[in-house]
Amino acid sequence: MTQNPSVALTESVTDPAPDGASSGADRFLDLIADELVATEELLTELCESDVPFVRDAGEYIFSGGGKRVRPALLLLCSKLLERNDRAQVTYAAVVEVIHNATLIHDDIIDHASVRRGRSTVAGLWGNSRTVLLGDWLYTKSMQMALTENNLEVVRRLCDATVWMTEGELLALERLGAIDLTIDEYLDIIDRKTSRLFAAACSIPALIPPAVEDGDRALYAYGRDLGICFQLVDDLLDFTASQDDLGKPVLSDLTGGKLTLPLILALPRLAADKRRWIEWALEDRAFERVSAEQILELVKREGTLEEVRQMAERYATQAVEALAVFPHSPAREALDVAPDFVLNRSS
Amino acid sequence: MTQNPSVALTESVTDPAPDGASSGADRFLDLIADELVATEELLTELCESDVPFVRDAGEYIFSGGGKRVRPALLLLCSKLLERNDRAQVTYAAVVEVIHNATLIHDDIIDHASVRRGRSTVAGLWGNSRTVLLGDWLYTKSMQMALTENNLEVVRRLCDATVWMTEGELLALERLGAIDLTIDEYLDIIDRKTSRLFAAACSIPALIPPAVEDGDRALYAYGRDLGICFQLVDDLLDFTASQDDLGKPVLSDLTGGKLTLPLILALPRLAADKRRWIEWALEDRAFERVSAEQILELVKREGTLEEVRQMAERYATQAVEALAVFPHSPAREALDVAPDFVLNRSS
Repeated sequence: MTQNPSVALTESVTDPAPDGASSGADRFLDLIADELVATEELLTELCESDVPFVRDAGEYIFSGGGKRVRPALLLLCSKLLERNDRAQVTYAAVVEVIHNATLIHDDIIDHASVRRGRSTVAGLWGNSRTVLLGDWLYTKSMQMALTENNLEVVRRLCDATVWMTEGELLALERLGAIDLTIDEYLDIIDRKTSRLFAAACSIPALIPPAVEDGDRALYAYGRDLGICFQLVDDLLDFTASQDDLGKPVLSDLTGGKLTLPLILALPRLAADKRRWIEWALEDRAFERVSAEQILELVKREGTLEEVRQMAERYATQAVEALAVFPHSPAREALDVAPDFVLNRSS
Repeated sequence: MTQNPSVALTESVTDPAPDGASSGADRFLDLIADELVATEELLTELCESDVPFVRDAGEYIFSGGGKRVRPALLLLCSKLLERNDRAQVTYAAVVEVIHNATLIHDDIIDHASVRRGRSTVAGLWGNSRTVLLGDWLYTKSMQMALTENNLEVVRRLCDATVWMTEGELLALERLGAIDLTIDEYLDIIDRKTSRLFAAACSIPALIPPAVEDGDRALYAYGRDLGICFQLVDDLLDFTASQDDLGKPVLSDLTGGKLTLPLILALPRLAADKRRWIEWALEDRAFERVSAEQILELVKREGTLEEVRQMAERYATQAVEALAVFPHSPAREALDVAPDFVLNRSS
C-alpha cells in the first residue's frame, strides 16, 4: 500500500509503479492512464509557441510535477459516463492550464517566490512576464476548449474562471482582516477552488449526448470535493512539514490570510492570545510571536480536528451525490477519490 | 466643422452636438448613436458585481472617456451588413471590455501611473488588485460574448486575445533593444493592436446568416486600420502635446519602446546621435539627452513624415477592402473612418 497516494498519483503519470504493485491509487489511475499521458502531451504541445519565453516558462510550469487532480477527476467522470471521445482529453488539459494560469497570477499577488518546492514563475522571470504568461495561458486554454465546438462546456469553464477571479478579489479585499467570518471564508474557497473542481467533474456530462441529472450530480460532487480539497490545503499549512509542502509552514498567516483553523479558534481565545494572531497578520512574519506558539494555540483549541471533521463531512456529501450512478470501476474510483484528498500530505 | 473628430466621437456618446451641427463625425455617429448608448449601458451593467472593488474600479475605467473606437467600428460594420439584432451591441461592449482588460494589465507592465490624463488602475489600487481586475474583465467579456451562443464569434475573440498577449510578450522580450527591426515592430503592432480591430470589424459577418467574403473583407479592413491606428499612436508620442495625450511626450522611448520613427532614423544616424537613443533607452529617462534633442533628430531625418505616409498607405488599403460592398451610409462612414484615425490629436 502506497503511503502517500497523492504523490503516487503524480509520479505514475511519468513513472509507473513497479510490476505487481496494485494499491488503491494505482487502480484509481489504471482506468485513465492512457488519457493522462495524452493530457500531458497536449500540455507540452500547447507551449510550442513562436514566443521564446512562452516555450521556456511553459515547459517549466508543466514539468513541475503538479498533481493533475482536476484532469484526473474530469477523466474519471468521463469514464463514469462511458464517454471515450478525444474531447475529454482536450478538456482535461484545459482545466489544468486554467488552474496553472490562476496559480501564476496568484504568485504575483501573494509575492510568492516558492511553490511546490521550486521557484515561482514570478520569482524567476519577474511580474511583467508573469502577468502576460498568465493571460496567455488563460486565453490559450479557451482557444483549446473551443476546438471541441461545445458552447456549453466553454460557458461552464468561463463561469468557473469568473468565480475564481472573484474569489481571489474577495480574498484580497479581506487580506489581513482578523474579523473574517466563516461564511466569508467558505464563500471565498467555494469561488476560488470549488467551482473549477465542479466544472471539471461536470464537463463530461455536457459532451453529447448531454445528461442533465448527471451534470447536476457531478457538479455537486466536484463542488463538495473542492471545498474538502481547500480545507485540507489550509490544514496542511498547519500540519505538514516544510519539505512536504515545498513552502514554509504557516505561510497563509504570514501572507495575511486567515484560514478556518484560526477563524474557529479566535472567538475562544483570551485577548492576549488573540493579539498573537493580530501580530502575525500585521507583521506578515513571526516577529512578536513564533510559528510554534501559534501552532500550539490551534492544537490546544482543537480546531484542526474540527476542520478535519468538516472536510470529512464535505467528502461524505460529495460521495452521496454519486448515488445516482450505477456501480462501475469509475464510480468506485470517484467514491474513494475524497480519501486521497483527505489523506494527502502535500 | 469639428476640429477634433475623435473627441467629438467620444463626447457625442454622452453629450450630443448642438442642434443643426452636422459634421462628418456627427454623421458617422448618427448611424450608430442608439447602439453606442446601449453599449455604454452594458458596460455599466457589467460592473454591477457583488465584489465592491470591481464596482468602484469598473465605474472608474468605463467613465474615463475612452474613444470607443472598437465598438464604433463593430457597429458600423454591422450596419454595413444590415444586421440589426441585439448581438451587435453585446459584441460591441465585449470588444471594449477586452481592450480595457489588456490596457490595465499593460499599465502594470509599463509601470504606468497615468493614462488618458488620469491615474491608472494600477497607480490607484496597486498591482495585485489590477492583475485580478484584468482577469475578471477578460473572463467577464468572454462570459458576455457567450450569451449570444455563437461559437465562431467567441473563437474570433479568443484568437484575437491570444495574438494580443503574444504581441505584448514579444514587445516585452525586445524592450530596451536598439536593434528592433521594422519587421519585428510591425509583427508586434499587428498582434497587439490590429487583430482586435480585425475581430471587431469582422464579427458582424459571423452573425447568422454568416457571409464569408464579407468576413474576409472586413477582417482585412480592420487589420489595416489597426496598423494605421497604432502607427498614428506611435507618431502622436512624438508630435502631440502632453495635454492632448494625457501622458508625457516621448513616453514610449523612456518606457524602453523603440517605435517606427526611430527605427527608421537609426541606421541613418552618426554614431554620436545613435548614442542619444541608446542613452534614453538605457536610462528610461532624459538624463544624458533631452526630449527636445531627440525630437529635433527625428524631424531632421524626416521619419515622422515617412511613418505618416505609411499610415496613409494602410488607410488606403483598408478602404480598398470595402470595395466589395455596395454603397450605403455605413460604407461611407467606414470609408472615412481612417481619416479620423489619421487626423486624431490624442
